[in-house]
Amino acid sequence: MSPRPDLAALDAADPLARFRDAFERPREMIYLAGNSLGPLPKASAERVARMVRDEWGESLVRGWNSHDWIGAPARVGGKIAGLIGARPDEVIVADSTSANLYKLAVAAMQARPDRPVVLSAPGDFPTDLYMLEGAIRTLGGGRRLALAEGEALEAAITGEVALLVLCHAHYRSGAVRDMAALTARAQAAGALVLWDLSHGTGVLDVDLNGCNADLAVGCGYKYLNGGPGAPAFLFVARRHQGTLLSPLAGWFGHARPFAFEDRYDPAAGVARFACGTPPMLSLAALEGGVDLALEAGAAAAAAKARALGDLFIDRVGDALILESPADSARRGGHVAFHHPDAFAIVQCLISRGVIGDYREPGTMRFGLSPLPLSFAEVARAADLLVEVVRSRAYDDPAFRQRSKVT
Amino acid sequence: MSPRPDLAALDAADPLARFRDAFERPREMIYLAGNSLGPLPKASAERVARMVRDEWGESLVRGWNSHDWIGAPARVGGKIAGLIGARPDEVIVADSTSANLYKLAVAAMQARPDRPVVLSAPGDFPTDLYMLEGAIRTLGGGRRLALAEGEALEAAITGEVALLVLCHAHYRSGAVRDMAALTARAQAAGALVLWDLSHGTGVLDVDLNGCNADLAVGCGYKYLNGGPGAPAFLFVARRHQGTLLSPLAGWFGHARPFAFEDRYDPAAGVARFACGTPPMLSLAALEGGVDLALEAGAAAAAAKARALGDLFIDRVGDALILESPADSARRGGHVAFHHPDAFAIVQCLISRGVIGDYREPGTMRFGLSPLPLSFAEVARAADLLVEVVRSRAYDDPAFRQRSKVT
Repeated sequence: MSPRPDLAALDAADPLARFRDAFERPREMIYLAGNSLGPLPKASAERVARMVRDEWGESLVRGWNSHDWIGAPARVGGKIAGLIGARPDEVIVADSTSANLYKLAVAAMQARPDRPVVLSAPGDFPTDLYMLEGAIRTLGGGRRLALAEGEALEAAITGEVALLVLCHAHYRSGAVRDMAALTARAQAAGALVLWDLSHGTGVLDVDLNGCNADLAVGCGYKYLNGGPGAPAFLFVARRHQGTLLSPLAGWFGHARPFAFEDRYDPAAGVARFACGTPPMLSLAALEGGVDLALEAGAAAAAAKARALGDLFIDRVGDALILESPADSARRGGHVAFHHPDAFAIVQCLISRGVIGDYREPGTMRFGLSPLPLSFAEVARAADLLVEVVRSRAYDDPAFRQRSKVT
Repeated sequence: MSPRPDLAALDAADPLARFRDAFERPREMIYLAGNSLGPLPKASAERVARMVRDEWGESLVRGWNSHDWIGAPARVGGKIAGLIGARPDEVIVADSTSANLYKLAVAAMQARPDRPVVLSAPGDFPTDLYMLEGAIRTLGGGRRLALAEGEALEAAITGEVALLVLCHAHYRSGAVRDMAALTARAQAAGALVLWDLSHGTGVLDVDLNGCNADLAVGCGYKYLNGGPGAPAFLFVARRHQGTLLSPLAGWFGHARPFAFEDRYDPAAGVARFACGTPPMLSLAALEGGVDLALEAGAAAAAAKARALGDLFIDRVGDALILESPADSARRGGHVAFHHPDAFAIVQCLISRGVIGDYREPGTMRFGLSPLPLSFAEVARAADLLVEVVRSRAYDDPAFRQRSKVT
C-alpha cells in the first residue's frame, strides 16, 4: 500500500470537480453504481420537464418540427460520436443496446454470407450472447455461435468467422480488451468486428476510428447518465453505411419516412439503422447526460476514472481479492472484488450509505463515475468497505435477503 | 344534413366530459391530431416529474426494485389488455410498434416454416410493410410478401400463407377491418394473424380474444396519450406463448435475466417478447395515459368517438369528399377527407387554431379523441373547416410551405 494521498489536494486539483454540482445527490450517500445507472443531472430534470410541459403539452404533434424531435436521434448520436472517436454522421441513438446489436449483427452476417461463424466470448455481457443466438436462429443457414477467450479467442479467428462481437470493458471485471489489436486481427481474417461499448462510454477514451472499427453499440444509462432505460446508440463506420442493411427496416430508417410509400428504401448513412418512433422523454434525459460528458471530455473523464480506481484499489489493499486489472490502462470505470460473502457485504455497505452492486457469484462492483464523484468520497467508501469486511459486520441475516435486481 | 343538434345538451350528457380537464390544453386551440400524438395528461406530467426527481434522483439504481420499474412492462401491458379484450398476461409494453411487429412476424413465420407467404395489404401503415420486408430478408428461404386488398385479399388467403398482417383501423381512411371474420378466414387456411392496433387502441372497443386473435401490436402515443414516441405494446394469445420464440432474444425476455447466464432461456409467457431495458421515463408517461383510458373504459370511449365522428361528418356535409366510412361502426377514431388542396387547407386551419394533419396525396385527417374533446369543440372545428374551404381562404402561398413532418 502506498503512502496515503492528500485527498483534499486531489479534489482541489481535479479539473472535473465542478461537475459534481451538476448532479442531484441524495444526502449521506456515496453512489458507486453509476456503472449500472448513472445519477440524475440537474439539467436533465429541467430538460425533461420542459419537454413534457412546453413541448408535448404546448406544441403537441408540431413538436416533431418546432422542437426538432425528429432530428434528435442524429443530433444526440453526433454528440456521442465525440466521446468515442467517431464522426458525427457515424452514430445514431435508437432502441436498446440489445436491439441495436441484433440489427448490426444480422447486417454483418448477411454481408459475409459464406462464413458460418459468429465469434464471441463466454461470460461477455449476457444479452449480447442471447441476441446473437436470436440473430443466428433467425438467419439460419448453418450459422453458429462460437465462444472463446484469451489465446483461444485469437486462435478462433479463422476464415469461417463472419463477425467478432466483444464487449470493450467487461461488465464484471472491468477489464478492457485491446480494441485496435483485436479489430486488426479479425479484419486480417476477413471478418467484421462489433464492439459493445456499454461499460466504457463516458469513462474510457474510446477511439473507434483510430482502431479502424467497423461497428459498435452502447448504452445510455450508465456513465452517460441518461436515465433508467435511456435509449442506446449504434455506430457504423462510413465505409459500411452504403452496403449494410438493417433487418429492423422501420420507417425512421426509410429514405422518405413521411412519403408513406409501400416499399422500403433505406436512408443514406447510419440513419437507416433507426427503426420506430424514438421515446422522446427518455431521449431528452439522455441528451442532458451526454452534454455533460461532452463538456467534460472523454480524455479528462478517463484520466479521473483511472485515478479514482487506483485510489480505491490501493485503499482496499489486501482486504479483498481484486477481480479487476490492477493496471488502470487495462481497466474500465469500475473495480470488482471477489468474496464468498460479497452479496452480504454489498448489502451491509448499502445500509451504511455506500451503494455498490453485486453480481453472481461472489462479485462486488464499485463504479467510479468521474463526473459526480470526488476523491474524498471514493476514499471514504473504500475505507468503509474495508471496515465492513474486517469487522465482519456483514455477517447478519438481514444482509442476506435477496431481491429481484441488485 | 340532419337538423343541427343541441351541442350543449350533448356535452352535458357526455359521460366522459370530466376527462377533458385531465389534459393540458393550449388556449385557443382545438386539437384534432390525437390520432398522431395525443395531448398531455396532467397526471402524466406529475408522474414523469416524480419518476425523474424522486425515483431516478433519489433511489437511483434501487428504483428497479423499490419503485418496481422492473415490473412496469408487464403492469402497463396488463392495463392495456383491459382496453383490447385481452387477458393481463397476454400483453406487455416493449420497444416500438415496428420492432414488436418484427418480433411477432418472425416468430410466426418460423412457426409455419413450410408456408412461404406473408400476406398484407397495399397502403397499410408503411412501417408495417417495411418491417415485413426486413423480416423476410432476414429469414430468407424463398419467403415473400404478397399484398392484396378487399376480395383479392380474401382470395389470397391460401395454404401458402404463414401469416396475415393487417392494420385494424386504417391510418389514412380510418376504415376498420372485420377482425373476427378475417381472423377466422386466415385460421381456417392454417395461417396466423397479426393485427396492428395502433390507430384503434383507446378509441375502438377492440376484442382480441372475442375474435380469437393470435397476435397483435400497437402504439402508445396516439389515443392512449402516452407521449411522443411512447413505448409500444404487443399481444400474444396464451395458446401461442409456449411455442413462439422472439428473434430479439434479449435479457429482459430471459427466464432469469439477473442470473447472467451465457445461454438464452426464454421466459414463460408473453414476457419472452421483451428485449432490452425499457425507457422508464417514457414508460411512466405512457402509464399515465393508459390509466385515464382504463378509467374511461374502451366501450364508452368508442361510443363517444363514433358520435364525434358522425357530428363532424354531418357538419362538413358536401363541402368535402369523405374518405372515411360514413357508417361509424366501420370507422376508427379519425375522419378523413379528400381535396386537391388538402395541404393548404390544413395549414390555413392551423393558423386559425384547429390542428389537423395532412397525408400525401390530398388527404386531411381529423382525430376525434374522445377523452380530451367536447362536442362543441368538434362542431366548431368542422364549421371552421367548411368556412375555410368555401371561402378559399387557404388559397395563399403562406399555406403551401412544406415542413418535414405534418
